[in-house]
Amino acid sequence: MLPTEFIQQLQHFIPADRLYLDPVDCYAYAYDNSKKYFPPDCVIFPLTTDEVAQVILLCNKFKIPITPRGRGTGTAGGSLAEQGGTALSLERMIQIIAVDAANRVLVAQPGVLNEAVQVASKPHGFFWPPDPSSAAFSSIGGNLAAGAGGPHAVKYGTTRDHVLGLIAVTGQGNVIKTGCYTTKGVVGYDLTRLLVGSEGTLAVITEATLKLTPLPAAKGGLVAHYRDIDSCAQAITTIMREPQGPSALEFLDSGSLDLIRSRNPTMLQHDTGAMLMIEVDGTEHEITAATDKLLAACQNDGLLTAAPVQNTTELWKARKALSPLLRDIAPKKINEDIVVPVDKIPQLLAGLTTLCERYQIPNVNFGHAGNGNIHVNLLVDPDKPGESERAYECLDQIFDLVIDLNGTLSGEHGIGSEKRPYITKELDDVTLTLMKQIKLTFDPNNILNPGKLFP
Amino acid sequence: MLPTEFIQQLQHFIPADRLYLDPVDCYAYAYDNSKKYFPPDCVIFPLTTDEVAQVILLCNKFKIPITPRGRGTGTAGGSLAEQGGTALSLERMIQIIAVDAANRVLVAQPGVLNEAVQVASKPHGFFWPPDPSSAAFSSIGGNLAAGAGGPHAVKYGTTRDHVLGLIAVTGQGNVIKTGCYTTKGVVGYDLTRLLVGSEGTLAVITEATLKLTPLPAAKGGLVAHYRDIDSCAQAITTIMREPQGPSALEFLDSGSLDLIRSRNPTMLQHDTGAMLMIEVDGTEHEITAATDKLLAACQNDGLLTAAPVQNTTELWKARKALSPLLRDIAPKKINEDIVVPVDKIPQLLAGLTTLCERYQIPNVNFGHAGNGNIHVNLLVDPDKPGESERAYECLDQIFDLVIDLNGTLSGEHGIGSEKRPYITKELDDVTLTLMKQIKLTFDPNNILNPGKLFP
Ligand SMILES: Cc1cc2nc3c(=O)[nH]c(=O)nc-3n(C[C@H](O)[C@H](O)[C@H](O)COP(=O)(O)OP(=O)(O)OC[C@H]3O[C@@H](n4cnc5c(N)ncnc54)[C@H](O)[C@@H]3O)c2cc1C
Ligand SMILES: Cc1cc2nc3c(=O)[nH]c(=O)nc-3n(C[C@H](O)[C@H](O)[C@H](O)COP(=O)(O)OP(=O)(O)OC[C@H]3O[C@@H](n4cnc5c(N)ncnc54)[C@H](O)[C@@H]3O)c2cc1C
Repeated sequence: MLPTEFIQQLQHFIPADRLYLDPVDCYAYAYDNSKKYFPPDCVIFPLTTDEVAQVILLCNKFKIPITPRGRGTGTAGGSLAEQGGTALSLERMIQIIAVDAANRVLVAQPGVLNEAVQVASKPHGFFWPPDPSSAAFSSIGGNLAAGAGGPHAVKYGTTRDHVLGLIAVTGQGNVIKTGCYTTKGVVGYDLTRLLVGSEGTLAVITEATLKLTPLPAAKGGLVAHYRDIDSCAQAITTIMREPQGPSALEFLDSGSLDLIRSRNPTMLQHDTGAMLMIEVDGTEHEITAATDKLLAACQNDGLLTAAPVQNTTELWKARKALSPLLRDIAPKKINEDIVVPVDKIPQLLAGLTTLCERYQIPNVNFGHAGNGNIHVNLLVDPDKPGESERAYECLDQIFDLVIDLNGTLSGEHGIGSEKRPYITKELDDVTLTLMKQIKLTFDPNNILNPGKLFP
Repeated sequence: MLPTEFIQQLQHFIPADRLYLDPVDCYAYAYDNSKKYFPPDCVIFPLTTDEVAQVILLCNKFKIPITPRGRGTGTAGGSLAEQGGTALSLERMIQIIAVDAANRVLVAQPGVLNEAVQVASKPHGFFWPPDPSSAAFSSIGGNLAAGAGGPHAVKYGTTRDHVLGLIAVTGQGNVIKTGCYTTKGVVGYDLTRLLVGSEGTLAVITEATLKLTPLPAAKGGLVAHYRDIDSCAQAITTIMREPQGPSALEFLDSGSLDLIRSRNPTMLQHDTGAMLMIEVDGTEHEITAATDKLLAACQNDGLLTAAPVQNTTELWKARKALSPLLRDIAPKKINEDIVVPVDKIPQLLAGLTTLCERYQIPNVNFGHAGNGNIHVNLLVDPDKPGESERAYECLDQIFDLVIDLNGTLSGEHGIGSEKRPYITKELDDVTLTLMKQIKLTFDPNNILNPGKLFP
């Protein structure tokens, strides 16, 4: 319950149509893609940096938790008001402030959708490389705070590689300006990237200066079908040994393929046990050259067919639909996005099979193989007695395997609340303590997304 | 003067051949490329992370300043023991721990030279993109701590874009592990990039996991001669509007050209008033295509000639020699590396001319025009009465101009002690205070490179 005085002071500068207090209105801000549910006590929709600062100052005064929220598509529970208090929704800060093609820069408010950035950049011959599958409905504020990636990260990197500067309000209510407007700049500490991936625990991003990248002239696709997962995993490492690599390299295991078959019975040949979807981009000439090289790299004993695909749209649609489709058959699936060094993918996939067999948990894997980033889906049915327990034991062992293979627990989804219990598998005490101290430097009252990230 | 007890305890774990105490020996560690001179009271040469940690713990105990030092090529005074105490030279930690071509990763100790990284990567078809002109004699620890860049940053970015993880010892003496071994990873705060560019004020980097990039198949060069600086500046903005840009775009003004002429009388035509050196890389086919496009973009009223150059080696050598040559004619020159948005370069260059005329300071400009990063050289002779004063007034106005044009004070050299008085022109109080708090979080006794960065 929020103190009456807090609400009254809030109403001084936030008009009624930008302040939800009715629990029914707040309901839509209680969940994200983590499937957890934590209703905030109010939802505030600021329009300016100044309003954000005022809200944060007020919340400090009353020690009320604030949870920043983009479009609530995160899968780690990061945008949920776990401790109640205020949901700070940036979804109405949707101005694109500048498209500066001469300097390859786009300046935007945090609520702008990723897709809107692409639409605004395209006429100038540019795009913004971070490309989560949620691009059409996730915000750049959320992309930045989560450190989002996507299939093209294998060539273009992730969000942190494509931001020049930020305006943000710290947990203490201070407005800071980080980075600069130019592609080079080494004045002071790199607070920009400290905020990228910080999941709304340090500061609220209210403006972002994004670095644009030239659109490739064209794109080509090829698909390689493998008899089994081992040969497919081997091919991934061979492909990534090619210096001039793909612009996307997506892996699908037999479970993923079966799922696609269930919707598109004619799309895939029946004996494919694992598949690679490969994209190359550049000029037509480069595409031809790269295609030849990558087709050669695909060859091994387990290869059934490998060939260029004229129109990849349908296939990418099918790939994109995988996550929602899996949700249909296992609404309570556990969905991870672990990463291992590319040459450890064969060991990872073999290990996943062993573990899931041992714990009898149905498992479907696919993902951004070029970065070693595999989406592991444990298709749990919590209504079956003992299944949840087995699944979480299995998950625990999966994370141990990932760390043993010199990998990381999360490539793009972040820690939020979902992976909080596991973070100590990856980060040692000393490093974690330092991170907590940095958190308190930005947010001494611990009111900004409190409880997230840290166990 | 160091306390005897401190030295005795140091000698317990640092053998005599790795500890300089004689002022004569320490002399070589008193200066860098800033031309300042601050002798340390001792120089320590650790070999392991553990030794670095022990040294820092001991310095904390006795409150002795420690200045980390790579190869002392920095131009901002960063590696100088301004407050005396200990110089911590990483120059003997020179092991390349792994060249992992399958994962495009190289792991190195901090004292490894940039060039050694290139040499180790090349046989595998890779390179490490940060390419300061000092590559042959600067360390990757120094490159990371300074956030070094070079001519190829226009295509490949700077140091921060090419590091995956670090091992470092904080000012408090704690060993931390940042980042990960994979190209994706969002677990906890991005301490890696917080340390990149922090100029040895937060932690000593003792191991770096570097991300390698495929070597381009070939390189092509072209050179464009302009009648005057205005037309040349215009061409820069036109070239950078081309989505498929150059891999290097270096600008030389008439002063720079005269300097080259003084050494290579036949190298340059006499009527060239400003010049662009352009590099493109990729396949032969891409180079041809890019060359055509860039030649077209070079065209304007002031263009004298623009043409591909078969062998660019001589020209790049001449370009690289500019900084030392300038030193010959003006040993006490003021050397800056300001940055403005590319489309503001014409205004910057015009403004520089006006200011240097007003203050009667000879001035030579050249640099990484594709990033808007111009090396401004004020050829001051401090022995001429009043010249230093005029030069520093001029510099102050130059910095104001840069900030007015939405630029930044330093693209690659950093703040160190040299630009410390100016940092408040760029960073507001609130942001600077936050940076200072972060500094104290890493280094509560303020013994790690104390006094650097902050005014
Ligand atoms: C179908 C589907 C597909 C997806 N595919 C991908 C994918 O391919 N790659 C990928 O990386 N992710 C993917 N995601 C996850 C999610 O879309 C991304 O993490 C996205 O970046 C979240 O954006 P959002 O606007 O929804 O942020 P939210 O979910 O609202 O918030 C995410 C985190 O950022 C914080 N935050 C939000 N805005 C701000 C701000 N302005 N300032 C400070 N903190 C803020 C929140 O507190 C929270 O911790 C997918 C999600 C779905 C539902
Ligand atoms: C001829 C010449 C040309 C140059 N050209 C360029 C150029 O093109 N681009 C460019 O960016 N720079 C250039 N420089 C500047 C300089 O070479 C770079 O800044 C380089 O990165 C410094 O490396 P170093 O090993 O000499 O570091 P140092 O000068 O010894 O140190 C630089 C800073 O890093 C800190 N430091 C060093 N090692 C560590 C460590 N292991 N852990 C923590 N902190 C550490 C020091 O305390 C100091 O603050 C040039 C210098 C010269 C002399």
